[in-house]
Amino acid sequence: MTVSDRWLLPDGVEDILPPLAGRIESLRRDVMDTCQRWGYQLVIPPLIEYLESLFTGTGNDLELQTFKLTDQLTGRMMGVRADMTPQAARIDAHTLGQEGITRLCYAGHVLHTRPRHMLTGRTPIQAGCELFGSGSEAADMEVISLMLETLRVAGLPRIHLDLAHVAIYESLIGEADFDRDTESAIFDAMARKSVPELDQLLGQCPPGSAGARLRELARVSGGPEALNEARRILQGASDSLDAALDQLGRVSDMLGRDYPDISFGFDFCELRGYNYHTGLVFAAYVPGHGDSVAKGGRYDAIGSDFGRARPATGFSLDIRSLVSLGERVTRSAGAVWAPADDDPALEGVISGLRMTETVVRALPEDEGVNPAARGCDRELVKQGGQWVVQKLG
Amino acid sequence: MTVSDRWLLPDGVEDILPPLAGRIESLRRDVMDTCQRWGYQLVIPPLIEYLESLFTGTGNDLELQTFKLTDQLTGRMMGVRADMTPQAARIDAHTLGQEGITRLCYAGHVLHTRPRHMLTGRTPIQAGCELFGSGSEAADMEVISLMLETLRVAGLPRIHLDLAHVAIYESLIGEADFDRDTESAIFDAMARKSVPELDQLLGQCPPGSAGARLRELARVSGGPEALNEARRILQGASDSLDAALDQLGRVSDMLGRDYPDISFGFDFCELRGYNYHTGLVFAAYVPGHGDSVAKGGRYDAIGSDFGRARPATGFSLDIRSLVSLGERVTRSAGAVWAPADDDPALEGVISGLRMTETVVRALPEDEGVNPAARGCDRELVKQGGQWVVQKLG
Repeated sequence: MTVSDRWLLPDGVEDILPPLAGRIESLRRDVMDTCQRWGYQLVIPPLIEYLESLFTGTGNDLELQTFKLTDQLTGRMMGVRADMTPQAARIDAHTLGQEGITRLCYAGHVLHTRPRHMLTGRTPIQAGCELFGSGSEAADMEVISLMLETLRVAGLPRIHLDLAHVAIYESLIGEADFDRDTESAIFDAMARKSVPELDQLLGQCPPGSAGARLRELARVSGGPEALNEARRILQGASDSLDAALDQLGRVSDMLGRDYPDISFGFDFCELRGYNYHTGLVFAAYVPGHGDSVAKGGRYDAIGSDFGRARPATGFSLDIRSLVSLGERVTRSAGAVWAPADDDPALEGVISGLRMTETVVRALPEDEGVNPAARGCDRELVKQGGQWVVQKLG
Repeated sequence: MTVSDRWLLPDGVEDILPPLAGRIESLRRDVMDTCQRWGYQLVIPPLIEYLESLFTGTGNDLELQTFKLTDQLTGRMMGVRADMTPQAARIDAHTLGQEGITRLCYAGHVLHTRPRHMLTGRTPIQAGCELFGSGSEAADMEVISLMLETLRVAGLPRIHLDLAHVAIYESLIGEADFDRDTESAIFDAMARKSVPELDQLLGQCPPGSAGARLRELARVSGGPEALNEARRILQGASDSLDAALDQLGRVSDMLGRDYPDISFGFDFCELRGYNYHTGLVFAAYVPGHGDSVAKGGRYDAIGSDFGRARPATGFSLDIRSLVSLGERVTRSAGAVWAPADDDPALEGVISGLRMTETVVRALPEDEGVNPAARGCDRELVKQGGQWVVQKLG
């Protein structure tokens, strides 16, 4: 181990330095404050849990993403959270156990064994909101609206919102009744939007069958015309599919009315990575960035695995990515340089200034240093026996 | 695995719920703002690093406290940070690499394999400040003062500050030249302040020897009289010990002058858990709580292990513990209840209110609910075609 090796951080792991760290902290606060002003109450879920409670109600993907640890106190396996949404669901279902509607928000580091996307690291700062106890479209709309509001706070330009409904894929794949391996291959191909693979896997399905519909649907995406195309493909398939498409139609109508500046579209291949979602799902994108900047949706199932079924919807985002993509104007407030001087009056002046200002105190090693190099734009100087703040000369 | 088992969180791991989570967030912000107003710049060190960089320059205790993970990308061992101070030292020494004085602050979760004290959990929220590039007593005093200021911000009553100097123990144990096992047994007994064990281990040492002095010193603690007692025990031992005692004397004089309300004492058994400290160390206590509430000190050695020797001092504390112990007055700002009403004008009113207020929107499931049960103290009602905020009737 040479000295130079000790500098190395693992891939996808970084030191966040000033001033970027300050911008992240500032956005983190503004996002949390926004969520709280919408009535979402802050919770702080733990960094580690036993694996059973971390994965309950979630899919295999989350397990692969999760770092495992042995609890020295009990010998049981624990994991470092890779996603805070299931933790919020556990808190709602058990720890809080409230009747009626519960709104929760959170922000904190999560850890991934591998980057989920080439644009993201392995230690995102996840922030999110979750709304429990309402299966209504009004709840879906509230969560989408709040997500759009946090993206506005982050200063993101030109947002595109993708809407989807996981019941569509679930219903068709269930009806098609493939063997397990084929189903898994179809899921993979769908997730990667690989049309040639889907053609190969589903090409033999007779016209009008669930498999054929899946294959056709995988080619459909885009704006309102895509929804009409999906309606045509799924015509007469089942009432539940009609209901899903109707819901997508109503929500997109509301979005078009309330958010005329945001472009939106439908993506019927959209399968959530952690596959705990059960209904309407959504993801926000910005131009030039291939990964979604925020995403969420309905996941009514997790709570039942904890013994208490609760309708649930929510969204989450990575504060670290948002700061890189956003165009927030940050102003530096500057700082005041205080000389190394024993005058007891200086102590009082500094204490007073520090109520509202940054004051950097000179230390013996600062002899001859330029206060501007320490981030200061003003200094304390003694004039006629009084300490006064002056612009750096 | 029964449903009830899935509720269980590991020992020392907890869900932090409202309103406690909000109080923690509020204190976290106030502590970070205080540090920044003293000129400390925020950094966000990573949650995980390779073990070599996490432990470089630190002692064995930190390694025992650290959860280990395998990096799937490289097969190398990583650890989840158990302490952020060495991370800040690495950032100063390498990532930032500034000349002159660098002041850094940070706040985030750390993870411990076992609780460090029966009063603390395994996932503290560590906040701290580190000052690099100054070996002066003015730097030590700045860091102690800032620590006391953050404890004041946390609303802690009656603080007691223990001062110590790790060079005293280091110098005596080096001079005594015990075999490794004995030295390790003495370190353990010192750390647990076990006078009977030290009597047994050091009882045979001739009067005036380093061993005999260690044994005598272990019995000494308390206020100014303890410093005089230590001077008597260490008389003629070495210049470096005299210098250490002189420094303790000067710093305690300064504290007595600047902080007349704070009681302070000396503890010559004080050995830092992570034993990277090299000089003056300090720990703050409050009545009725056996563990320190904040601690820190000088650690000039870590940087050199990273190839760049830098004088360093700092402190850290656990925000979670401080919130439990402090007496901060927190006022709830209340919230406004907005009915489920399609009136487009209501949307605008809610948006406007949310600039400064919390507004909770009624959902279909809220039919018949009392808004007070949702934390609201006011509601939006329509009067003469206008939406107005009224006290809950």
